[in-house]
Amino acid sequence: MAFNQKDIISIRDFDRKDIEYILKLAEEMEPIARSKKKSDALSGKLLGMLFYEPSTRTRLSFEAAMKRLGGSTIGFAEAGTSSATKGENLTDTVRIVGEYSDALVIRHNMEGTARFVANIVDVPVINAGDGAGQHPTQTMLDLYTMKRILGRIDDLRIALVGDLKYGRTVHSLAYALAKFDVDVSFVSPKELKMPHEILHDLSKSGVDVYETDSIHEVLDKTDVLYVTRIQKERFPDPAEYLKIKGAYTITSKLLEGSDAIVMHPLPRIDEISHDVDNTPQGRYFEQAFYGVPVRMALLKSVIK
Amino acid sequence: MAFNQKDIISIRDFDRKDIEYILKLAEEMEPIARSKKKSDALSGKLLGMLFYEPSTRTRLSFEAAMKRLGGSTIGFAEAGTSSATKGENLTDTVRIVGEYSDALVIRHNMEGTARFVANIVDVPVINAGDGAGQHPTQTMLDLYTMKRILGRIDDLRIALVGDLKYGRTVHSLAYALAKFDVDVSFVSPKELKMPHEILHDLSKSGVDVYETDSIHEVLDKTDVLYVTRIQKERFPDPAEYLKIKGAYTITSKLLEGSDAIVMHPLPRIDEISHDVDNTPQGRYFEQAFYGVPVRMALLKSVIK
Amino acid sequence: MAFNQKDIISIRDFDRKDIEYILKLAEEMEPIARSKKKSDALSGKLLGMLFYEPSTRTRLSFEAAMKRLGGSTIGFAEAGTSSATKGENLTDTVRIVGEYSDALVIRHNMEGTARFVANIVDVPVINAGDGAGQHPTQTMLDLYTMKRILGRIDDLRIALVGDLKYGRTVHSLAYALAKFDVDVSFVSPKELKMPHEILHDLSKSGVDVYETDSIHEVLDKTDVLYVTRIQKERFPDPAEYLKIKGAYTITSKLLEGSDAIVMHPLPRIDEISHDVDNTPQGRYFEQAFYGVPVRMALLKSVIK
Repeated sequence: MAFNQKDIISIRDFDRKDIEYILKLAEEMEPIARSKKKSDALSGKLLGMLFYEPSTRTRLSFEAAMKRLGGSTIGFAEAGTSSATKGENLTDTVRIVGEYSDALVIRHNMEGTARFVANIVDVPVINAGDGAGQHPTQTMLDLYTMKRILGRIDDLRIALVGDLKYGRTVHSLAYALAKFDVDVSFVSPKELKMPHEILHDLSKSGVDVYETDSIHEVLDKTDVLYVTRIQKERFPDPAEYLKIKGAYTITSKLLEGSDAIVMHPLPRIDEISHDVDNTPQGRYFEQAFYGVPVRMALLKSVIK
Repeated sequence: MAFNQKDIISIRDFDRKDIEYILKLAEEMEPIARSKKKSDALSGKLLGMLFYEPSTRTRLSFEAAMKRLGGSTIGFAEAGTSSATKGENLTDTVRIVGEYSDALVIRHNMEGTARFVANIVDVPVINAGDGAGQHPTQTMLDLYTMKRILGRIDDLRIALVGDLKYGRTVHSLAYALAKFDVDVSFVSPKELKMPHEILHDLSKSGVDVYETDSIHEVLDKTDVLYVTRIQKERFPDPAEYLKIKGAYTITSKLLEGSDAIVMHPLPRIDEISHDVDNTPQGRYFEQAFYGVPVRMALLKSVIK
Repeated sequence: MAFNQKDIISIRDFDRKDIEYILKLAEEMEPIARSKKKSDALSGKLLGMLFYEPSTRTRLSFEAAMKRLGGSTIGFAEAGTSSATKGENLTDTVRIVGEYSDALVIRHNMEGTARFVANIVDVPVINAGDGAGQHPTQTMLDLYTMKRILGRIDDLRIALVGDLKYGRTVHSLAYALAKFDVDVSFVSPKELKMPHEILHDLSKSGVDVYETDSIHEVLDKTDVLYVTRIQKERFPDPAEYLKIKGAYTITSKLLEGSDAIVMHPLPRIDEISHDVDNTPQGRYFEQAFYGVPVRMALLKSVIK
């Protein structure tokens, strides 16, 4: 078996073989995730869910993944219902829930929390997002979505669009794509360009990167438009923000003549117009669904 | 099979045959709901629970129903632990949770939400109350309670008591009773009478309706007293409210000499005195229990 | 079978035979709690969890216990997501959830709540802590921890340390230890001594009790140091509090030369230094884990 990770902390801990192993296993999981087949692969097993920050998609898709495999979950959906309100520190809480569980999923607003937790508990730890840090299972499902819809990852032309400076999702995805043979374009306003050190790392990995501030420039040579939100707070001048927001909004009109599929990690606010939702190109809800089989594959792989 | 509803949105979508089908199936479910028999009819299945408004009875009885049938649930119990706090709109959240689940149960404070949701997701949607709108599973369990305790619905003499103007429960129940051959009395203060359009609809359906402001007038010719709360906010004058409240409070003394059973959708505050709780007439806790077999019947019918 | 309790309200309701029965059964549960064996002993069964006060350890370990045995849970983790916010009284809520469930676990901030609830519902009730009152399953797991680690309870020398005046945990534990043949020391600042009536009860039970304000005095003749938190609020003078806190803080340095194991009901704040966590003496995380097999034994015993 190719996969020998105990913890799922950062996509950078995985090599191409690991990732391919998970994507393949996720494909086997899909009929179960779609409720077309039953499984009791994880029956009797318990997943501890420590969500110090609220999250619908990530939390519910982990729960769905565990339950579709016959397992159960325990935990909390926000810090308020945990002993955090009594002043108990994170260390004690995770050690205790680790004692009750066969694996832990943790989301926290502080970068580095997942790695810290993995070092103090015996059971496998899956990072479900730690602040500005990593969210590796999101990247896995992004890759799975491309492969599932377009049949491959190698040779794809992928444009990452929006806030490339602060978005942890696009950072992780960029590193993961560097393990494949792809064409990557970075499309962002000049204020929100991909950080230099990431560009540097990618070029060291042999990835050809193209930077532009215009979606139009890449649209007809792109297979995947991966869109992220540009936040108002990034711009001191509201007028500047409005102008930029307009230029990075995906509409069905913009997509006319393009074959690109549109992906988004969600939640979106208005960076993708609702008229894209029901087109053959708008695939972000399907992408959200793929979180379930991908997380099933990961849970099945780490829980003994 | 008589039952071919995909979504459970309004009791008005059901004809008598549909309702009878569910009541019959609920009877088969009862031993499982009482933990006297086991079932894995929905094992491997997932119910998405979207409770934008808190609720104990409705939420927990849906969960109990799903779990007694071997299924699992995912979701949230209040808007706070969902991505609603990140500004994600309802549409995206329900589409995503719909992707993870085999059916959705939704409660929301805005009338029409359930129908709206049913139109945008592929899986069956069950309305667990949408504001001033509908709460059809409550009506089903009300009917089941009558049939279960009194052996039939036809020929019953039923008095709906309390706030008949604003109470969505009594509106739905009135429409449902119109499908049967019953005697209905509406007992309310004159400020809180059943709305004209509902009276009109009922009379078109051939139901004989009697209106009064006095419980005493109907008490000895009633099989079922269905009591609802009169809210203080409905009365500008607190003294007027107190007087009226007194006249519509059910006590064991009031019930002396009557054979009527007392039902209530709960929660009650003080419109039924606690001395009724343990009498053979006070059946509202039993009624609450019947929410489980009725919802089992509905879940079993809509989840494929 | 020795065990014939329906409700688990106070450790004082149990005789030595009952306790030994549970401890023995907990040992059989341990491999299942550790996920080394599977069980469906409670499959199809529902545990109602009514947590009016938040709690991580107690709530999650009950959930883990129920789920490891193949059962399910319903309920709420804080009063906010229940109908309590609509003004529904406790009595109605517990009767309703009692109708849905095969047993109830309740935590509430008001002493006596669990006994009150046990009197109004038909299903077994387990007290998960009612304010200044009882928390019997904590005491059971405390006893199990001693027996499991040290091989016996009889003949152990046990020091209860910290706030012995207000701590419900040490009160219950003291009563339970009185059923065994043990040596008990009470170590506390003079302001926080064990209440007279408890000392009196213990001496009537034939327990030899030793009181002191110095840990050092008992350290080399103690098998178990059971530590509890001293709360700042107990002292009008902050300087006095700081002085006392220092004298009752357990550090690995303090433990040098002692063989005692260190237990704590958790959460701890700083009364046990983190350098004790990974020593062979610091056993409080293991103790927390034992909450699972002990609660499995109790659930299995009361749910029919």
